[in-house]
Formats: sequence, C-alpha cells, structure tokens
Amino acid sequence: MAACIFCKIIKGEIPSFKLFESDKTFAFLDISPLSRGHALVIPKFHGAKLADIPDDQLSEILPVAKKLVAATGATNYNILQNNGRIAHQVVDHIPKPNEEQGLGIRWPQQPTDMDALKALYEEIKAKM
Amino acid sequence: MAACIFCKIIKGEIPSFKLFESDKTFAFLDISPLSRGHALVIPKFHGAKLADIPDDQLSEILPVAKKLVAATGATNYNILQNNGRIAHQVVDHIPKPNEEQGLGIRWPQQPTDMDALKALYEEIKAKM
Repeated sequence: MAACIFCKIIKGEIPSFKLFESDKTFAFLDISPLSRGHALVIPKFHGAKLADIPDDQLSEILPVAKKLVAATGATNYNILQNNGRIAHQVVDHIPKPNEEQGLGIRWPQQPTDMDALKALYEEIKAKM
Repeated sequence: MAACIFCKIIKGEIPSFKLFESDKTFAFLDISPLSRGHALVIPKFHGAKLADIPDDQLSEILPVAKKLVAATGATNYNILQNNGRIAHQVVDHIPKPNEEQGLGIRWPQQPTDMDALKALYEEIKAKM
C-alpha cells in the first residue's frame, strides 16, 4: 500500500537499519528503542493484524526473531506483537537488560474461575 | 523433561483446557487469565527460551495463535513471548477488551540517537 510506512521501509523509500530480508520477511532496528537491540520483524505482506496475514507469511517470523536474539546476544528478552496498529503485522524483539530498560508489563490476573473457564473452553473449542 | 509443568500438561498428566494439538504445537486456556480467552501456545519441544527451540518447531506457533484469535473473536489482542521462564517456550494470546483487562504495557522509549544506532546496526548486522 502506497501510504503504509512499513511498505515504504520495505521498498527502501524510507531508509532503515535493515538486519534481515527474505522474500517474506523484513527486520530492522527500532529508532526509538526500549533497549539496545530493539528491532522489528515484519512480514512483507501488507495487513493490519495477525488475523490478516496468511499462515505462510507468519511461519518465518519467530525463526527470524531467534536469529536476532543470537545476533544481539540478549539473554533476557520479550517478543511482542500488538494488534490494533494500522500497519503491517509487527513483531518486536526487545532485549530486557534490567528493570528500567526494555518492556514494562502490567499483568492484572483475574481470579481462577473453573466453571467460567470450562464454559469458555467449550465455546472457543467449538470454533477451532 | 519429567519436572516440567508444560511437559506434564502436554502428556495429560496435568489436565488442561486444550484448544489445539498437533505433532509440534499445543494450546490451552490460561487458568489465571488477564482477559477472556487468554491462552498459551507452546511448542512440544522442551526448551527454556526462544533461542533453544528449533526453527521447525517455531513455524506453527503464530498460525496457531491466529486460529485462536478467530475462535475467540477478539479484535484487539496481544501476542507475547517472555524469555526467562524456565519452561517450554510460551506464547500467550491475550485479548484486550478494554483498558483495565488484558496486558498492560510500559513502553519507556529512549531518545533517538542515530550515531549510536548506526554503530549498533553494524555490530548486530555482522552477526546475522
């Protein structure tokens, strides 16, 4: 898509610190990093959310993220994929060197309700 | 591994709300969910972190997460993979119905420093 910033980066119309490129996948450094080595791994297929990307365009994403992990030398790191950005599917590789840098997470767990879970399970399972 | 909780879940020694199983991948509901439909997608291969999992065991993870998205009907959702758990590689599918429920994220961006990024780029690129 002409207006998509990620399509422009893939085409080279916007410069990037490109770390990986194949026929399906593109990876580059985030220029507003949360930590040293924070990178984005994107499919070349243009789509808004995970649900819009064909399976064969998804299969290489985590193997490429794994290559980035090895290249950055990170031992603690988060892989995050947010849905709601109007853009290519984005997967961030974000090293977590210490408490202050990297991704901060709020994890508001709900109480375990086995009856509600069982009902939900039946509902979702029927759609899988 | 005998002591691994995820291996026990895969074997059925610990019951789970199983939503998907193939020869490589296993998915089930989290019993302390952040939101309705919070599920875990794991490779059957036992390993501590993304870097420990063979590529062919990673390729199905995001397509299965995508199936879960469709089955739960979520339109806003996060896919998260934390490295540091001593367990199977874990990928959470977490619907984000509103501000209070689901995953909370702290995103402490660093100032853009193009010279530092360029140096880092050369360093990482050489290892890819």
